[in-house]
Amino acid sequence: MAKKIPTRLYLDEEEIPKYWYNLRADMQDKPDPILHPGTLQPATATDLEVVFCKECIKQELDDTTRLIEIPEGLQEFYRAYRPAPLIRAKFLEKALDTPAEIYYKHEGTNTSGSHKLNSAAAQAFYAKAEGLSSLTTETGAGQWGTAMAMACAFYGLGLTVYMVKVSSEQKPYRKALIETYGANLIPSPSNTTEAGRKILALNPNTGGSLGCAISEAVETAVKTDKCRYVLGSVLNHVVLHQSIIGQEAKAALDKYDIKPDIIIGCAGGGSNLGGLIAPFMGDKLAGKSKTQFIAVEPASCPSFTRGRYAYDFGDTAKTTPLLRMYTLGNGFIPSANHAGGLRYHGMNPILSKLYHDGFLEARSAIQTDVFDAAVRFAKIEGILPAPESSHAIKVAIDEALACKRTGEKKRILFGLTGTGYFDMTAYMAYNAKTMSDVIPSDADLEQGFSSLPDIPQNKQ
Amino acid sequence: MAKKIPTRLYLDEEEIPKYWYNLRADMQDKPDPILHPGTLQPATATDLEVVFCKECIKQELDDTTRLIEIPEGLQEFYRAYRPAPLIRAKFLEKALDTPAEIYYKHEGTNTSGSHKLNSAAAQAFYAKAEGLSSLTTETGAGQWGTAMAMACAFYGLGLTVYMVKVSSEQKPYRKALIETYGANLIPSPSNTTEAGRKILALNPNTGGSLGCAISEAVETAVKTDKCRYVLGSVLNHVVLHQSIIGQEAKAALDKYDIKPDIIIGCAGGGSNLGGLIAPFMGDKLAGKSKTQFIAVEPASCPSFTRGRYAYDFGDTAKTTPLLRMYTLGNGFIPSANHAGGLRYHGMNPILSKLYHDGFLEARSAIQTDVFDAAVRFAKIEGILPAPESSHAIKVAIDEALACKRTGEKKRILFGLTGTGYFDMTAYMAYNAKTMSDVIPSDADLEQGFSSLPDIPQNKQ
Repeated sequence: MAKKIPTRLYLDEEEIPKYWYNLRADMQDKPDPILHPGTLQPATATDLEVVFCKECIKQELDDTTRLIEIPEGLQEFYRAYRPAPLIRAKFLEKALDTPAEIYYKHEGTNTSGSHKLNSAAAQAFYAKAEGLSSLTTETGAGQWGTAMAMACAFYGLGLTVYMVKVSSEQKPYRKALIETYGANLIPSPSNTTEAGRKILALNPNTGGSLGCAISEAVETAVKTDKCRYVLGSVLNHVVLHQSIIGQEAKAALDKYDIKPDIIIGCAGGGSNLGGLIAPFMGDKLAGKSKTQFIAVEPASCPSFTRGRYAYDFGDTAKTTPLLRMYTLGNGFIPSANHAGGLRYHGMNPILSKLYHDGFLEARSAIQTDVFDAAVRFAKIEGILPAPESSHAIKVAIDEALACKRTGEKKRILFGLTGTGYFDMTAYMAYNAKTMSDVIPSDADLEQGFSSLPDIPQNKQ
Repeated sequence: MAKKIPTRLYLDEEEIPKYWYNLRADMQDKPDPILHPGTLQPATATDLEVVFCKECIKQELDDTTRLIEIPEGLQEFYRAYRPAPLIRAKFLEKALDTPAEIYYKHEGTNTSGSHKLNSAAAQAFYAKAEGLSSLTTETGAGQWGTAMAMACAFYGLGLTVYMVKVSSEQKPYRKALIETYGANLIPSPSNTTEAGRKILALNPNTGGSLGCAISEAVETAVKTDKCRYVLGSVLNHVVLHQSIIGQEAKAALDKYDIKPDIIIGCAGGGSNLGGLIAPFMGDKLAGKSKTQFIAVEPASCPSFTRGRYAYDFGDTAKTTPLLRMYTLGNGFIPSANHAGGLRYHGMNPILSKLYHDGFLEARSAIQTDVFDAAVRFAKIEGILPAPESSHAIKVAIDEALACKRTGEKKRILFGLTGTGYFDMTAYMAYNAKTMSDVIPSDADLEQGFSSLPDIPQNKQ
């Protein structure tokens, strides 16, 4: 007899996975290598060491080790807020009157409010272990900056956070939270870096972008002693750390013999989606499942659905290594009117490869539809979701309603990456019906693509 | 062999208590009865029916039934966010270098951000079951208003929330959150009620108080068809609902044979403290334990430590039934400078009786000390606490440091009632060092006491 499925499918502490899962090891066709922007040759660990922590670089370049052990000093931190709840959305199912089963992995119960803490803690742990004194990073919506501030406070490291200017203005309390944890927060673009000054000279009124903020944070890290740069998404080692989400979700579902038919995640840089789907995608690549995977991105920043699969810089100042990914071009700056996060021009290389090879689908959503879904979910399931997460909610509802029409009892799993407690300005705009939908024109996209590097690899 | 104690002492879903524990049934000396303010006779159910839901009144007046079943339709809601984590504060213990063990019950992982949802859900459930269409209530710091808004959205009831004006100004995002859940929010005192208009006429610039807001909410409930008033603290049925906190905490601790030596809770109206300690106090009253119980209140609103044990009104307009409780007088309005919540003149009658009879201790704390403890806790344990909860944290740290001096391995349990995500204005003031401590003078207190009702029962 099947076990009775509870509303919250918890794991015991001993059941928290002790290994990250490196999906690349199980991909027959691997993502293309990172390139050194000067030589256009595959980047070596030495090339990257001036910017990143050593252990993170090792993980970034490792596409063969399947399971990577989570160090005990980090497991200890994980145990303070994990396992994250895996919840059966019984109320939502009932409200939608759908035969589908809906599950969500809720990563927002920690103070950073999102899954970002999973990689922030890992990167701070390694930085401390390597003897560094401080880190720099950027933050957009603010979850990553908060997560890094918490992790650095815990492990005893200094932190400078370049926060996308429009976000720091829209979210004064998010800024205050990051500062409460002791970080030095600088709205970006700023006058503290050459990259910032250049961007301000070209466009003094810009609200900034993640690409700009990354340039500033990298520049500061390189110029500061015993300091490195950390990034909260896009890179492969971040997706590796986030595989704890999928590992936990799979362990909990396995306890009840539940095999998801559809897995849905929002996608900005790809860290949550990549982490959530990792072990399930491993099964699919091995022919063990036919799970459907859906990335949901904002229509205002449609890297997958309207982007190009090309080598591009991670930042606006064109200083980072080159990643082959779906991208809108490093010069693409999404509209400041978009309150829903996920405002990054590129996409993680693993996910980009899987999408390119047809293992992953993508859809875009406009922000009023996303907030409709968010408020509906909040009222029914009791959790006020982050705008980012709400992209996944929107498509989960769409899929559940499709099941209602067809009568299919699909099992849908989506990632609830975080809560919207520091996104009330966006909810206020939605409540006041002043929220607008911003979709870039083809000309806007062409403008972004014109910033792609003019290299042989992009002409194949 | 003793079981290994995990960081988070979870219960399985089937282990969530199905009964509330009514501590009064086990008190040899019961709290004094509620009095009708006109007749000064013990209030009957009929007296109270114009204001409150029937089932809540039944629970309010019941001091003999030990265990009261949580209805299944409410258990279903509880399962969506409970069990609340019981966490061993391993990092805090290490940072304090104390031999004490510190545990905290974390009630802040739901969107309302606090334990308030436990009673909000119960009261909305009963209101719906009784065929009401809407409810009114007041909110101070905002947790209760949010909890009621969530519960009313879930059960399909209208809600009007009178929010203490100074709070609605200090916490615009809290206001937005309540509105996102569909409630009608009115800053109090307002011109929408006679009580509000009277208070404004006397003091047009008042920041309001819970007492004023209660008057307005009660008046509106009485004047509206199929509408009743709900209160988030002070009353005995609220403490009953909150006993789920203590019931769960005790069930989890019992699994590991842990008997707390000290239990600490913050105290405003007493709902969290009363709920947390209930089953443990039952053991103490039965001679089964010698647990020490400590209430922590703000020095700015010292109901226990400087108040009088007297019959008093629950509201400023002197319209509610009379409760015998520790009170500063219904006319006492705590300083608006105090950012830390817990700004209510009275205290739950059960707790008042226990304090009067020596079973419960009380201490007061000034707000900068409370925020020192809050930020310390946030950095060490990773959770940004609500200012209210931080009163308990402050004394938990004091007690753990006392153990360090004496070498005692006491087991300390405190209630982490909620998170501070909507209290960033207070944290900003703390970070900017503009926070001040406000302690009422003896003359201020005498002024408050002068508002106590001049009745024979108060002259004994």
